[in-house]
Amino acid sequence: MPGIGRRSARRLAFFLARSPADEITALAASIADLTTQLHACERCGNLTGEAECSVCRDSRRDSSTLCVVEQPENVAAVEATGAFTGRYHVLGGAISPLRSVGPEDLRIDPLLKRVAAEKVGEVILATNPTVEGEATALYISRRLAGSGATVTRPATGLPVGGELDYIDRSTLARAFEGRRRLDG
Amino acid sequence: MPGIGRRSARRLAFFLARSPADEITALAASIADLTTQLHACERCGNLTGEAECSVCRDSRRDSSTLCVVEQPENVAAVEATGAFTGRYHVLGGAISPLRSVGPEDLRIDPLLKRVAAEKVGEVILATNPTVEGEATALYISRRLAGSGATVTRPATGLPVGGELDYIDRSTLARAFEGRRRLDG
Repeated sequence: MPGIGRRSARRLAFFLARSPADEITALAASIADLTTQLHACERCGNLTGEAECSVCRDSRRDSSTLCVVEQPENVAAVEATGAFTGRYHVLGGAISPLRSVGPEDLRIDPLLKRVAAEKVGEVILATNPTVEGEATALYISRRLAGSGATVTRPATGLPVGGELDYIDRSTLARAFEGRRRLDG
Repeated sequence: MPGIGRRSARRLAFFLARSPADEITALAASIADLTTQLHACERCGNLTGEAECSVCRDSRRDSSTLCVVEQPENVAAVEATGAFTGRYHVLGGAISPLRSVGPEDLRIDPLLKRVAAEKVGEVILATNPTVEGEATALYISRRLAGSGATVTRPATGLPVGGELDYIDRSTLARAFEGRRRLDG
């Protein structure tokens, strides 16, 4: 499991071994429920216990803006900012020749259908700023050409609260390329 | 000294104590030279051993673009990207009421004079993306209003190679606000 090494695993195992039987049974049942209860939202691919996820069911969300992410946990990260009021589309990964993940392995065709069917005005390609994520964003932006939707990507640049001296060269170079006007 | 704690300091002291006498004397002389040889460039405030720094003396640099930074080490950071071909102006710090640093303590008036005298077309305010740096950039952009120069600031956003889940909320929110078009 991510972030849990041999020592942490042993500590958790012994902690569970001395916990009350009913708590252990409840935890085991909850974990087993993950497979039976949770599945991908029919519309967006986010994890949900219902047919559609809570964002898709929320009629107050702006359906003209679609945020495309790689994994369900990215939905949680963007939701935590409170800065996005549109809807999501989860690809289920990024294009990666090294891991034999091609476009057909991702939920890209359902995305193209949604953009057409739901009259989406803007698609924000918020795949990770990694090589795979950038390539995936580029591929999708080409597939969306002629769809009528504006295609955008979150800015690359300096972190809030950071210092110039501690920022890697590539990010600093991209921050300069993407500089914005302060006046007017 | 930054990055050197009690244990590192002790290790360095003992290392020097067992070094050849001529090396120690040379190091001492080099350190003493810092005060006599190095000073602020007359034009931009960067550290130099000459009247003007190597960037100011380089006639191939584009004098129509001026990059404003807080400290001389920031010049080195931007130079390392290779993405900037203009000239610099070092403020000597950032406006900080907590540390009693006001606009009059920084090289802001010389900056305004340079922008007018050197026919600068764009001023890139590359102060740190901290509270003090942002405030300083805002202050300078107001002072530059009516100067005829375009005032920009490097983009705030995602780091190159990063992952959405590991990026703080404020930076992710700013990356969404500053999103850029991929099409057209």
